[in-house]
Amino acid sequence: MAARQGREFFAVRRVSEALEGFRPARRTGVERIPLEQGLGRVPAEAIEAGAPLPGFARATVDGYAVRAADTYGASEGMPTYLELSGESAMGQEPEVELRPGGAVAIATGAPVPPRADAVVKVEHTNAASEELIEVLRPVAPGEGLVRADEDAAPGAVLARPGRPLRAHDLGMLAAAGVTTLPACARPTVAIASTGDELVPATTADLGAGQVRDATATALSALVHEAGGVPVFAGIVPDDLDALTGTLRAALAGADVLVVSAGSSVGARDATAAAVAALGEPGIWCHGLALRPGKPTILAECEGVPVIGLPGNPRSALVVFRLVGMPIVRAVGGWSEPPVEPTVRARLARDLPSSTGRLDIVQVELDGDEAVPLFGSSSLLSVLTAADGYLVVPEAATGLAAGSEVEVRLYR
Amino acid sequence: MAARQGREFFAVRRVSEALEGFRPARRTGVERIPLEQGLGRVPAEAIEAGAPLPGFARATVDGYAVRAADTYGASEGMPTYLELSGESAMGQEPEVELRPGGAVAIATGAPVPPRADAVVKVEHTNAASEELIEVLRPVAPGEGLVRADEDAAPGAVLARPGRPLRAHDLGMLAAAGVTTLPACARPTVAIASTGDELVPATTADLGAGQVRDATATALSALVHEAGGVPVFAGIVPDDLDALTGTLRAALAGADVLVVSAGSSVGARDATAAAVAALGEPGIWCHGLALRPGKPTILAECEGVPVIGLPGNPRSALVVFRLVGMPIVRAVGGWSEPPVEPTVRARLARDLPSSTGRLDIVQVELDGDEAVPLFGSSSLLSVLTAADGYLVVPEAATGLAAGSEVEVRLYR
Repeated sequence: MAARQGREFFAVRRVSEALEGFRPARRTGVERIPLEQGLGRVPAEAIEAGAPLPGFARATVDGYAVRAADTYGASEGMPTYLELSGESAMGQEPEVELRPGGAVAIATGAPVPPRADAVVKVEHTNAASEELIEVLRPVAPGEGLVRADEDAAPGAVLARPGRPLRAHDLGMLAAAGVTTLPACARPTVAIASTGDELVPATTADLGAGQVRDATATALSALVHEAGGVPVFAGIVPDDLDALTGTLRAALAGADVLVVSAGSSVGARDATAAAVAALGEPGIWCHGLALRPGKPTILAECEGVPVIGLPGNPRSALVVFRLVGMPIVRAVGGWSEPPVEPTVRARLARDLPSSTGRLDIVQVELDGDEAVPLFGSSSLLSVLTAADGYLVVPEAATGLAAGSEVEVRLYR
Repeated sequence: MAARQGREFFAVRRVSEALEGFRPARRTGVERIPLEQGLGRVPAEAIEAGAPLPGFARATVDGYAVRAADTYGASEGMPTYLELSGESAMGQEPEVELRPGGAVAIATGAPVPPRADAVVKVEHTNAASEELIEVLRPVAPGEGLVRADEDAAPGAVLARPGRPLRAHDLGMLAAAGVTTLPACARPTVAIASTGDELVPATTADLGAGQVRDATATALSALVHEAGGVPVFAGIVPDDLDALTGTLRAALAGADVLVVSAGSSVGARDATAAAVAALGEPGIWCHGLALRPGKPTILAECEGVPVIGLPGNPRSALVVFRLVGMPIVRAVGGWSEPPVEPTVRARLARDLPSSTGRLDIVQVELDGDEAVPLFGSSSLLSVLTAADGYLVVPEAATGLAAGSEVEVRLYR
């Protein structure tokens, strides 16, 4: 009963409050990783170009490197004649020099020879003889080429800290000769499950009243998606001592600790008591104004964020997606939250909701209609049938059928 | 010159035509994978529930298991009295039997004892004595519990083929005791780069006119994103025999072959000739009505889809994202394309475009404004500066400043 009374001290918080106000300082260390393992990893510092890129002026068209001034006034009716002196070969220092009134044949990507300041497209020329070309249109300086530092000047930021690397960021780093980079280490996320009814997911034959621990499997996948490394701390019976012991052991090696609590009130109280016993500063909130997901605990114990999830699998996954994944990402150094795919749809039926509470409603998409899926929050099938979910804001008293809603899509 | 003339036989295709019309039949084989490696993997067949889930009727509230009929007429003013006979323990076969006019204490998640058909919430009861409870509200049959097969009936489809598994799908499979599943093998995607100017990305010091192969690094990351396994086939000089040899060798072990062609017209022609020499049915299109990305080759040689990308890194990545990734996914068994995150924004300036051609314009987001980024298609910095891109449709002659556009966001 002590635990149940203790709970009264903690106000139920709004989700927006939790996202803004619960900000554990925990961050992972920095590790050096090979570039080819960089997709989705978070640079720990700005990665700057050491040298100009591409490093030399390059033709961007097939044609002739010229001095732009030599082409002024050229037209189809009155072409300018330039003397051809060799070719700039791909991947080599140009061996030819551009003479005034001259032109050097050049292919897209080849280095522009010294003194040339433009490349005239082959389509705007004619071969007058072996040594002479006609230029039919003038070019301006800089036309038909990229400057030696146009892709990046020395010191230019090629990748910024806090934002996961995208495929083309890796390309840019490769172009700059970056082969390893300092990245925020992936957060280790310990996952403990409690519940006298739970057995490992690998259990082939269930005893009466037993259920497989589905939540830990799904949470592990969400931890992966958030850039973390899940570590399973085991299934603990609904017993305060056992739970405290397991959580304390898990805390030692973890950057984030996640407990999916037992489903009954007593089990949840035991979880709260065990979390409270883990250390300072302790529980930040016990209860979120959220459906499903009210019995959520957010805590910080000995410098490790602790997330106590509701016992129902669906509630646990909703809460972890909404509140847990942002914590894992923050610990892993993400300063820019990822963008979620969304789609606009028309609500197929009325959705009642209580003001002051965020409602997460799973929906199936049927054309441009979002059809809400209902059912007990213990049912995973409501999640697996869903294409995404919608958020009924805290201020709303509900949404009317036909209203336009934004559905956040699962991928 | 033969290659250049040969090219005239191939019409430039629209992107929509290519996406609908170029459908190589290649599919990867089926492999058995452990469930914990299932995130994002594609089930090769429907995975069905073998037994009902949760497997027994479970309480969804803390309270008392009862026969609903025994509570009819109960009210605060006129409670119904039920005789308490023990408790249903979590995770065990209920040892107590429900007698007519009786009640069994039960916690959320515990098995509902035989003959009970509802659970009345503890809040709607009072303890009258040690053996007697007052029920203050009637419950209907099925209230306060989930049925034994409510999450899944035997034979229910838990995961469908062709759709990559999401975190909660893994949870559902875990609940059903699935520990391994048949999945489409990841497609092996061979990547060859051509260009006399290219050196490996690991080259520390560049010679004059040389550039590091940035495209291969970025393409490898996009292959990963599309569920494939990239295999680097090397950098080949712009030489028809060398290229044909390398591509033929790469084709043997690949499910998809990607060639980023040299940037000059001559190098591109060599690529087309080498691809044409690889086998039947050969080149499907040579040229897409796309900017950037026109010089794209789509081919099928000896049963392997072959994608010839433009030589400019930015063009190559735009084309691979638009056309190449869907091919990799299809080969890997995806029948449902992934959803891309998008955001609505207001175009910051006019965008001219030619009708009949798809334009991919990189944009930076500034508040709700989409600011187009311009520059040579050889510049990777245009991509790395972008938050996403917008598609100017084939039918459009351009987009006016201020128009609402949908930006597809990079993650």
